[in-house]
Order: sequence, then C-alpha cells, then structure tokens
Amino acid sequence: MENFTFYSPTEFVFGRDTQHQAGELVKRYGGTKVLIVSGGRSAEQSGLLNQIRASLAEAGIAYVEQKGIRPNPTDDAVYEGIDIARREAADFILAVGGGSVIDSAKAVALGTHYKGDFWDYYCGKTTVPVPETLPVGVVLTIPAAGSEGSGNSVITKLEGRHKISVRYPMHLRPKFAVMNPELTMSLPWFQTACGISDMLCHIFERYFSNTQATTVPDSIAEAIMRDVMKQALILMKDPDNYDARAAVMWSSTLAHNGLCGTGKQEDWSSHRLEHELSAWYDVAHGAGLSVMVPAWMEFVSHKNPAKVLTFATNVMGICPEGKTPEELCRLAIEALKGFYRSLQLPTDIRTLIGREPDIDMLVDSLRGNMGDTLGFYVKLSMDDCRQIYTLAL
Amino acid sequence: MENFTFYSPTEFVFGRDTQHQAGELVKRYGGTKVLIVSGGRSAEQSGLLNQIRASLAEAGIAYVEQKGIRPNPTDDAVYEGIDIARREAADFILAVGGGSVIDSAKAVALGTHYKGDFWDYYCGKTTVPVPETLPVGVVLTIPAAGSEGSGNSVITKLEGRHKISVRYPMHLRPKFAVMNPELTMSLPWFQTACGISDMLCHIFERYFSNTQATTVPDSIAEAIMRDVMKQALILMKDPDNYDARAAVMWSSTLAHNGLCGTGKQEDWSSHRLEHELSAWYDVAHGAGLSVMVPAWMEFVSHKNPAKVLTFATNVMGICPEGKTPEELCRLAIEALKGFYRSLQLPTDIRTLIGREPDIDMLVDSLRGNMGDTLGFYVKLSMDDCRQIYTLAL
Repeated sequence: MENFTFYSPTEFVFGRDTQHQAGELVKRYGGTKVLIVSGGRSAEQSGLLNQIRASLAEAGIAYVEQKGIRPNPTDDAVYEGIDIARREAADFILAVGGGSVIDSAKAVALGTHYKGDFWDYYCGKTTVPVPETLPVGVVLTIPAAGSEGSGNSVITKLEGRHKISVRYPMHLRPKFAVMNPELTMSLPWFQTACGISDMLCHIFERYFSNTQATTVPDSIAEAIMRDVMKQALILMKDPDNYDARAAVMWSSTLAHNGLCGTGKQEDWSSHRLEHELSAWYDVAHGAGLSVMVPAWMEFVSHKNPAKVLTFATNVMGICPEGKTPEELCRLAIEALKGFYRSLQLPTDIRTLIGREPDIDMLVDSLRGNMGDTLGFYVKLSMDDCRQIYTLAL
Repeated sequence: MENFTFYSPTEFVFGRDTQHQAGELVKRYGGTKVLIVSGGRSAEQSGLLNQIRASLAEAGIAYVEQKGIRPNPTDDAVYEGIDIARREAADFILAVGGGSVIDSAKAVALGTHYKGDFWDYYCGKTTVPVPETLPVGVVLTIPAAGSEGSGNSVITKLEGRHKISVRYPMHLRPKFAVMNPELTMSLPWFQTACGISDMLCHIFERYFSNTQATTVPDSIAEAIMRDVMKQALILMKDPDNYDARAAVMWSSTLAHNGLCGTGKQEDWSSHRLEHELSAWYDVAHGAGLSVMVPAWMEFVSHKNPAKVLTFATNVMGICPEGKTPEELCRLAIEALKGFYRSLQLPTDIRTLIGREPDIDMLVDSLRGNMGDTLGFYVKLSMDDCRQIYTLAL
C-alpha cells in the first residue's frame, strides 16, 4: 500500500425529498447570494428548479441563474457563468444537474475570483496556487460522474476541442450534495445506462493497478462493482425501483470520492482514450467508455493479466477451474461486453459514432493532450493506444 | 434504504512517516497555540511526542501539554484539560494516542468555550446547542475506536461510573488524522487484538439491522470484516507486517466513519452491554466486546436469525449446504468465538474480569444509563440483557 491522503469532506444528504433542504444547506455553508447552474430543460420541466427556488427563498437566500449547460461542458459556458457570478456578486454556486453541470459550476467557482483565464488551471500553464474558490453545493440528478463528491472537473475548450480533466481536491470538492434517488427515475434509459458505465469505469481505473497489498480498497471496489452490475439489471426491468436507484446513486459517489483508490497508483487510461472520442464526436462519455474499456482490457490482459484474472473471478463470477489464464481473461471481457450490451450500450466505435473514426486524428489529439504515454497498469505508448482504438472498431 | 446523511470531513493522511506532517496540518487548519493531549508514557518512550513537538516547532506553532490520559477516560481528566486549554488560550487540540486520548481531547474541545459543565452534553441534560468547539487533530497510535474519523466521544463519569457515548458529528469530527501504521507495530499484542475486536464490532453494530435493501453498505461491511479477520491472523504470526498493519489501521477508520451504516438503522446493543463491564470492572473495551458479541449474537439468533445467516455465509465463509438455519447460526457464532480465541481474547465474563460478575448491578446500571430497552435488530428488554450477560458467563 502506498502513502495516501483521503479527504472527502462533502456532506452527502441522501434520500427521498432531500432537495427541499437545499436552501437550509446553502445557508449553513455561508451562502447569501447563489448562482444556480443547470442544464435547464429537464430540471425546469420536472419542477425541480421551482422546488430549489422555493427552498432558497424560504431560507431567505437570493439567487440568480445560469441555464443551458450541455453534456461535455465547454469553456464558453464557463466564461458566461463567471461573468454572471462577478456581475451579481454571487458568493455560492449551486449546481442542479449531473456531472456536466457540476463540472461547469466548479470551473465557475474556480474562475470567479481569479484575475486571469480560468483555463490556465486546466491546461496546466500556470504555477500560481489555486485562488480562493467560491463554495459549491450540488443537487444531483444523474448518478454517473461522481463529481458531487470529487475534486475533479472536466471541461472541453471549444478551440481545438481539448477535453481536460483537472483535480483540485482541496478546492473543488462540493460543500454538500443533495441526492434524492427519486429524481433519477425520470432519466431516459440511455442516460441511466451511461451513468452506470461511467461509475463502473471510475472503479476500474482504481482497481486495475500494480500496487501490492491493497486488500481494503480492492475488496470494497469488488463489492461495489458486483452490486452496481446487479442493480443495473434490476433497473433495466424496473426503472422505478427505488432501492436499486438508491444503490446505484450512492455507488456513483463512492466510485469516485477516492475510497476505492486509497493507497493505490491509479490508471485512468480508459478515460483518456474515451475523452478523445467524446471531444471529437460529441458522444456520451459513458457510451464511449463501454466501447473503450473492453478494448483496453483486452490489450492489457496480454501484457499484464494479473488484475484481469482477479476481476474475472471476484467480480464477474467466472469459475477459474479448468481454465487457462487466457481463457479466463477472454471470458471476463466477453462477460463485461455482454453486460454493457444488456444495458443497450455500444461496445464498438462504429456503432458509437455511426461512422468510421479517424484513428490518426484521435491518436494525434491524445498525444497533444497527454504526451507520449498513458496509464500505469500497463504503460501505453501512442502506438499501443492506436492498437486499442483499432481493437475497439 | 433509509434517508441518511454521510459526512466524513476529516483529512486522513496515511502512511509511513506521516507524523512529521502534524505541525503543517495544524497550521493549515488554523491552529496557533496547541494543547497536545496524550497518554504520555509510550508516546514519550517511542520518541513520537518529540517528533510531534519538533514538527509543531518547525511550523512555528506554540504548544502546551496534558499527559496521563488513561484507557476508559474519565471526567476528571477532561476538567483538567479544559482548565489548561482555557488558561493557556489554546486554539487547537492535538490528540496523540488511541481512542481514549482522542475521546478525552474531543471532550476538552467541547468544554473549553462552554460556560457550563461539559458533562451536560454527555448526560443529555441540556438542550442548549453545542457551543463553538475547538478544532481537534489526531496522531493515531492505536487502530481500534475509530474516533479519529467519528463524531463520537465516550467518557466515564467517576461518580456513579456512568460511561456515556455521545455523537456530535458536526462538531467533534477531527479536522485531520495522521495515521502511520508503523507506529502501531510496538503495541502489545493484547492492545492490537482488542483494537481488532473493537473495529469489527463497529461494523457488527451497523451490519446487524432490519433495514431492507442496503446492499451497498452491507457488501462493503462484509468485505471489510473478511479482510480484517484475515489480516488479524497474519499479524498474530507477523506483528511487524506493514501491509497487514496498514489494512487493519485503515479498516478501523472505515468501520466507524459512518460508511458501513449509510441508510441503515444501527443497533449498538453489544457496545451498551459492554460499556457496563468496562465501566464497573475497568477491563479493555475490545476484550469486553469479544465476550459480549457472541452472547448477544446467540440470543438474537433465536429471535431474528436473518442477518446472522448472511453473516455465517458471507463473512465467516460457512457453506450453507445441508445445514439447518439453527446449525448455520451456531457454526457462525462458534467460528467467531474461535477467531477471538485465536487472537487470545476472552470469550466469557469470568475469564475477562477474573471473578464472578454482579449481573444485577450491571443490569441496574444499564437501565439507569439506557432506559428499559436496548437496540433495534432485536429490541432487548432488561430481562433479555440479563439473559445475555448470563449467556456470556
């Protein structure tokens, strides 16, 4: 086990009707003038935004709003949010939505008091310590990205389509996250499935590691992975099942608040490979992951099968008896693809993007964003990455 | 799953040599004048206190000290600590030790700015909201109580030997906890074993619940319980095994930071039953638990076997095939007793206290502290509690 810091200070307020506590929570964390950031459409239609406005009003808290944040959030929306926050002197950002809304809200929180361009902290071109950030609260509507409990934010710069993920755990972790599983019942199935794919991958990126003696995070990770897969299949048949919605929602947070990575060197190759797909073809991140993860796993299983084998037996439940390691790996990857397909998620690039991908462009862009190598479980060269994109065709 | 709040804001700094970060961490959390609270003897002899003093000095932080906190910490030490903190105008409490030291430090943090008697908040006789508490930091030396990550504190009032546990999660959770597994290698085996018994019981109290649809916390709890038992047996043979020390230390925190109880009604009967033993006979809490837990489990298995059965198969690894539920429960309890014995812990009261207990007195005291019933998994009458003490003979 490696030395680590685990810091997950967010107050998670979980369960039915919890959205009505938003105003009281903002107040507890010192907010007096709130910028509500949202996608706008579905949160308006469902009545959620009105409930949040009422809760803030009841707590005596003023608010302004920024709507229209889209999936794979872009820098233009962040600049707009920063302008509103400055102009209106907001002292608290409340994200009402899923990962894209939260990530955009975090970028606004980071940029409002910074005199330069917020993108400096994404492109890594500044060595100035992170400025005082505005506190962020969350009302979560999509269990997927885990952004409600993480210090991460992923923003795409429109110019050049750079999709960059940053991590400032001391600054960007939300103060609170309100999580009502009922709010997720109205999600289209594809969004539910993409969320499940995303949270599973957040665990994969931590589980697939060469760090030895990590039984605590590994056994927790295996437990959550098995349970998420089980609950996902329940939701396929019964999308209004509260208990399954609750299990998936809470797992999405635990998948990404750092718990499953304590003491481990994490990998993150599948995410980086996918980010190019969603940046260039604007596909859903979770659907990109269901394509890239099996291809990545197939490639690494030939170089370093150890963890793929424990994944096969401890997570996918494949009996190792009488099987060669190669067979076990192959069966695990097939079972994982089968799981994705049973959620109606794609497992190849052509189905995902509806055309032939430009693999050269993807690899060039990846090199531009990440340099010459990727990941740790198997350190991938750019040629390896090209092979993985090809395996994913 | 029930609605819940999960709030674990402590920054856990885990690994080799991390004690040298104590000064820097106190500074980050605003401390300028520290009261170091410790047992004194072993932390002095090992050189740890000197390392902490050096770390504080290097960070430019002044400090005073209170030594001599004993196991099952008592109110007299808390009053002494409050006096020192007030006199010296301490603005930060740094606990260097295990659960007893941390719990005493928390009580000092609670009482310093309160005009009345700190005990008001333990005996429940005040309705005044918790006053502004001093921030608490921890350098952990004994993995057991989980107090480094909990909002709990257990203090015994000498007059009447009332041992009371309180929970103020918003006020008593430490700001940071430094956790170096190497510091635990010099513990006497009995203390290591008692710590393992304590952390396991923190999970039992949450695992044994009638709340339905709690697969996420339950599968995490099962994973941690299995791993702690495995690592404990490794430590029996190889007490300097860093990885096993690290796994046990991190598990002690996760056992009690709320994770395993999310969305569940918790029980806490075994702890209440044990608190009378350690209050009246001054025995080690963990050794009291290895006596009371099997007796409690035997009693409840006849009334409500459901969770004992999943414990039998999912944690103790007993194959259910061809066995009646009664047999499975009995085998699980026998296996758990065998585990405790293999750690050289007692499993009956007479061995624990070295004489015949006064069960009438224990039950009377329990009633005085807890009222007429105990627990939720099976709601115990005081007559049930008497039977459980008798089963533990």
